[in-house]
Amino acid sequence: MQLAMIEDKVIPYAELEPVYLDRGAFFGDGVYEVIRSYEGRLFALDEHLARFARSLREIAIDGVDIADVRQRIETAFDRASIVNAKVYFHITRGSGDRGHGAPKDMKPRFFLTVMELADNPKNKEDGISVSTFPDWRWKRCDIKSLNLLPNVLAKMDAEKKGCGEAILVNDAGEVTEGSSSAFFIVRAGGREIVTRPLGPDILPSITRAIVERMAGEAGVRMIEAAFRPEDAGRAEEMFLAVTTQDIVPVVRFDGTQVGTGRPGACTKRLIEIFAEYARRRR
Amino acid sequence: MQLAMIEDKVIPYAELEPVYLDRGAFFGDGVYEVIRSYEGRLFALDEHLARFARSLREIAIDGVDIADVRQRIETAFDRASIVNAKVYFHITRGSGDRGHGAPKDMKPRFFLTVMELADNPKNKEDGISVSTFPDWRWKRCDIKSLNLLPNVLAKMDAEKKGCGEAILVNDAGEVTEGSSSAFFIVRAGGREIVTRPLGPDILPSITRAIVERMAGEAGVRMIEAAFRPEDAGRAEEMFLAVTTQDIVPVVRFDGTQVGTGRPGACTKRLIEIFAEYARRRR
Repeated sequence: MQLAMIEDKVIPYAELEPVYLDRGAFFGDGVYEVIRSYEGRLFALDEHLARFARSLREIAIDGVDIADVRQRIETAFDRASIVNAKVYFHITRGSGDRGHGAPKDMKPRFFLTVMELADNPKNKEDGISVSTFPDWRWKRCDIKSLNLLPNVLAKMDAEKKGCGEAILVNDAGEVTEGSSSAFFIVRAGGREIVTRPLGPDILPSITRAIVERMAGEAGVRMIEAAFRPEDAGRAEEMFLAVTTQDIVPVVRFDGTQVGTGRPGACTKRLIEIFAEYARRRR
Repeated sequence: MQLAMIEDKVIPYAELEPVYLDRGAFFGDGVYEVIRSYEGRLFALDEHLARFARSLREIAIDGVDIADVRQRIETAFDRASIVNAKVYFHITRGSGDRGHGAPKDMKPRFFLTVMELADNPKNKEDGISVSTFPDWRWKRCDIKSLNLLPNVLAKMDAEKKGCGEAILVNDAGEVTEGSSSAFFIVRAGGREIVTRPLGPDILPSITRAIVERMAGEAGVRMIEAAFRPEDAGRAEEMFLAVTTQDIVPVVRFDGTQVGTGRPGACTKRLIEIFAEYARRRR
């Protein structure tokens, strides 16, 4: 008889709940988003849903109604009544007997959580340390997929070194992005912020796009250009952009102090403008 | 209140079963193996367990007792009483609140299925068609991880083209391997079989290793060398090596007939020797 074993418990295969045969678990065959709220309102929901729809399209998960996804997110967020919340959701291609090929009649599966967002004001005030790690990821990092093991390994390495984030470096010796964040350096006396151009090797970060929109107001020019860890090491300031923490100053890079070792003026200005922007968007 | 949503059903987060918060589902943060049996005996169990132990080590999932894994596999296989079985198992880093970094106190989670192996004699008799697809995978394909979305996308593309397997081609224009198989070409009048050298860009296939051991008996020399789709297109024969089907002749490559369009003499000899080897190993 076909059977399954969960830890050391044997059960008939036919009695397995579908979640155990989810293609998300077998293959990471799904895509996800993380959205946050500020003061009781979901932030940049449209942008996240547009990116989610694109991710689904790129891996050919069909038959998902984005209006329905939006409805579920809003329902769950309302029900949770958490003012500063983090909403995670994913859709996988479906559940069934394991096989790389995808049966035509599969029904995509939806999963979501609403959690308290653990804001970390200390990170914003003091900045964090980062360390570099090889970018081992696949060639379609523009798709926000559930294949995140290289990101996990990079983050684990950073944590082992006492750092808050890993900055990924590709085979050409160029910085791509953080393991779960976009990465910026500041130069030209605080008048230029530089980040990698969009392409298949990085995620089209929503927070990055918002930083781009804010650049004029902050009196900086955002330059999309490849750079190397050496260039980063010479930067006046650097920061991460990530949904759950918006902008985070970086004050140590691979063990070397950045600028004065304290969050710089340009980064602090961007943090302030972002906070205002988030308030306005409510 | 923190909550979760499964399809459109809302439940308290605290009531989620651990499987929903498994790092396998969130990140593909785990490794797996597939073992088959021939006539009631598991085949190459030691080799699969050794590779599994290495995969665990490479992604730093600690505290797994391989003797215990072996015991579970044998128990489940015995209980299933399936003569020609396919045993799938994976271990993930654990279950908990989502975060890329891995908490120290996580307990690895084990999952296994024993299924009927769907042998496909027609594939062996007539051979299959294959098509090429870009190798989008990460840089550590030597680790048998749950990050398999690029493999899935390649296989889906092959199926759309009416092919049984996708042959992956890297940025250098070289063939690496199949989406879920090793790939060989035959040349020099059936005296040489060529496959890609082991390295971080391909899986150290167990079936490939067995083919290597059989080569002398089959009167062929196995050459480890990079080759391109053009070289493959000129090959006299080609075949896949994969646990669930051992050796599968390939008779069409990107729409072009291979050799006579029928399984070649060298491939057929290898299939026979493999069958004998599997019998002896029982």
